[in-house]
Amino acid sequence: MQIGTMETIEVLGTVAFAISGSFAAMQRRLDPFGVLIIAFVTSIGGGTVRDMLLGDTPVAWMRDVNYCLLILATSVATIFFKTHIKKFKITLFLFDSLGLGLFTMLGIQKGINFGLSPGICIALGTITGCFGGVIRDTLLNTIPLIFRKEIYATACILGGSLYFGLKHYKLGDDMANIAVIAFIFVLRIVVVKYRLTLPKFGY
Amino acid sequence: MQIGTMETIEVLGTVAFAISGSFAAMQRRLDPFGVLIIAFVTSIGGGTVRDMLLGDTPVAWMRDVNYCLLILATSVATIFFKTHIKKFKITLFLFDSLGLGLFTMLGIQKGINFGLSPGICIALGTITGCFGGVIRDTLLNTIPLIFRKEIYATACILGGSLYFGLKHYKLGDDMANIAVIAFIFVLRIVVVKYRLTLPKFGY
Amino acid sequence: MQIGTMETIEVLGTVAFAISGSFAAMQRRLDPFGVLIIAFVTSIGGGTVRDMLLGDTPVAWMRDVNYCLLILATSVATIFFKTHIKKFKITLFLFDSLGLGLFTMLGIQKGINFGLSPGICIALGTITGCFGGVIRDTLLNTIPLIFRKEIYATACILGGSLYFGLKHYKLGDDMANIAVIAFIFVLRIVVVKYRLTLPKFGY
Repeated sequence: MQIGTMETIEVLGTVAFAISGSFAAMQRRLDPFGVLIIAFVTSIGGGTVRDMLLGDTPVAWMRDVNYCLLILATSVATIFFKTHIKKFKITLFLFDSLGLGLFTMLGIQKGINFGLSPGICIALGTITGCFGGVIRDTLLNTIPLIFRKEIYATACILGGSLYFGLKHYKLGDDMANIAVIAFIFVLRIVVVKYRLTLPKFGY
Repeated sequence: MQIGTMETIEVLGTVAFAISGSFAAMQRRLDPFGVLIIAFVTSIGGGTVRDMLLGDTPVAWMRDVNYCLLILATSVATIFFKTHIKKFKITLFLFDSLGLGLFTMLGIQKGINFGLSPGICIALGTITGCFGGVIRDTLLNTIPLIFRKEIYATACILGGSLYFGLKHYKLGDDMANIAVIAFIFVLRIVVVKYRLTLPKFGY
Repeated sequence: MQIGTMETIEVLGTVAFAISGSFAAMQRRLDPFGVLIIAFVTSIGGGTVRDMLLGDTPVAWMRDVNYCLLILATSVATIFFKTHIKKFKITLFLFDSLGLGLFTMLGIQKGINFGLSPGICIALGTITGCFGGVIRDTLLNTIPLIFRKEIYATACILGGSLYFGLKHYKLGDDMANIAVIAFIFVLRIVVVKYRLTLPKFGY
């Protein structure tokens, strides 16, 4: 972990995902080890799947023990201060949305570094942003939330498309990054605030 | 994607798996994004697990964006034309069985290219053919169908064994490939038509 | 598979995990193929996830077909002799605990060979020891046992910490290995015998 804007937001995103994972696990009455594992999986699941698909191994969290310590500390703090943290529900939601935007952007950048085509980069960004939550819900034995509620992943896909649109019009890298992260962040908040969902299909 | 017999059947198999995934997701009343993800996972899941186990990365679907576009188009078409497609249930089943045979054969060939022993190649073929469905069912929160009904994977294992039997008797590669695909294809149809299942075991 | 102390215990651990997987699958009334797959996944799941995270591919079981044959034979034997094997429940539990200790130690050693930091090595050891069971339970559609009962993974983490403690005090490699395996083995037995669990947390 070096100091910088991206790193700062990544740390905040990691913390937010660790807290959301811990809460989901405590709600299911798991023991502290289970809470820790679910927090860990929610935080690093997306990046791990991305790195395994790319073959960029050992995967990211293995190369920097600080992320593991950060998740451990966050999870322990969540267990002890759970009553207080519940009052910060909105703050958490904001961090979570910020993390979603940042992780999506990181995934896209990594795809570009590997020379993959834009559609694949968007898929990689979406995986990086969303798969932590998918694995968390699968381990907790529910249909992943992402498939049932909120336009969570859709925000990543639209944000990724926006990125390649901005690059097409020669926007600078830093500006495009910030625009995409802000877009995903704001879109998710708007969607949740106004309870927008995609229509469902059944037989 | 190049043009050729193998590629043609692979495309047909990919389409069939995308349709079957879309139907399974719509039955569970997922939103369109969920339907798309499940279609995608069903189509490319087997090959992705195979490539991650082999370390042949980036995994196959990342190297050719056409497969993603094909799955996207198929899934969207399935959502819009679902009433009509249900009438083609038998056609679908045939494509699905053909895809199973082809994907199993592709997995076996890839194992041979990596210099693995026959038993491992058969396992790789079975994984390529079946794991898309396993991941689909796991995400949809049911015990994977493969563990409960039909001799689905057993067809892959028998087909793989047949392949190495034919090679032992010096049969040409093309002939062996076609024989194995036809064997898996026909075996699955016979099993489903006559409702054959393996006996179950319980305490 | 070569002959040696580590290999002997690894074989015993593989057999014990294959038997425990087979029993779990039969309890859910899966067909014989399902029983075989679950036995396989329980035995090799931990090592497979470890190798995919490290990028040490093709993963271990692909490089030595003997492990597959061993699991196949064990699973078939379990199906046929299930009544008799139930009488050896305690023996099985002992093998399973021994396997847990050994697999954890193998994961730690592999992490050290890859030059990873101690915290990451302990995580790798825990993954090697525990993830076979996690995948088994996920496929069988239950919240993984590990998240609900027993201090299973906690034993791996404590054992791993002990290892680096012993190394810090310059204990020889062989002695440290044996001490850690014995520690995990005994700790798990004590925990199960006295029905110790970590306290649970809920809202």
